[in-house]
Amino acid sequence: MVELDFDKAGGLVPAIAQDAETGEILMLAYMNRLSWEKTLETGIAHYWSRSRSKLWKKGESSGNIQEIREIRVDCDEDCVVLKIHQVGGAACHTGFRSCFYRRVEDGRLEVDGEKIFDPEEKYGGRK
Amino acid sequence: MVELDFDKAGGLVPAIAQDAETGEILMLAYMNRLSWEKTLETGIAHYWSRSRSKLWKKGESSGNIQEIREIRVDCDEDCVVLKIHQVGGAACHTGFRSCFYRRVEDGRLEVDGEKIFDPEEKYGGRK
Repeated sequence: MVELDFDKAGGLVPAIAQDAETGEILMLAYMNRLSWEKTLETGIAHYWSRSRSKLWKKGESSGNIQEIREIRVDCDEDCVVLKIHQVGGAACHTGFRSCFYRRVEDGRLEVDGEKIFDPEEKYGGRK
Repeated sequence: MVELDFDKAGGLVPAIAQDAETGEILMLAYMNRLSWEKTLETGIAHYWSRSRSKLWKKGESSGNIQEIREIRVDCDEDCVVLKIHQVGGAACHTGFRSCFYRRVEDGRLEVDGEKIFDPEEKYGGRK
């Protein structure tokens, strides 16, 4: 199995999810050794949720999983790129295709990303 | 000025450098508040060197700087994408265009990146 350097940053390695077809960067999350092994084993992206301190199969409840097309590893083995197919089309919990749906423009953030779903409708809330 | 959440990970935020023209992910490095301010102010990528604990203007000695074309910020304001023009063509100290010059293939790392320069010639060493 390909080994990563999990020691450099407290057991975690940043993983960049990139749309395999368009090259758009969709999100960044973190992996511990368990998530890395699960990802390699299943071909589905698994991360480590820092807020919940648990293994996080992206899209586990919504079905919007990330199918791995290619995995790339950097020179120091402390960062990976996952080229993926995003089921459902949106990687961000806000409903945008990418978490990077805003760009810096004249000293402020301008929304120019594509919105795929309404999080209120998808995750509930006021109905 | 656009504020980032530097508190979540000990004062640092990961910054992904992506080729503005091709969409190729070139490297990931970290920024503290000073690097972020310098990057916004100059239009040239500045990071924080974790190994040397100092401000790191990428390409400062070699001239292979990264000119910013666009900056994108994620939903949590704790990660940024820098769309850049890489002067000299290579972002990696190994001489490859991208730090992610290897992909996982049959349980091992396969080199398929493009090599731009020979680091022995560029940085010295045995001659």
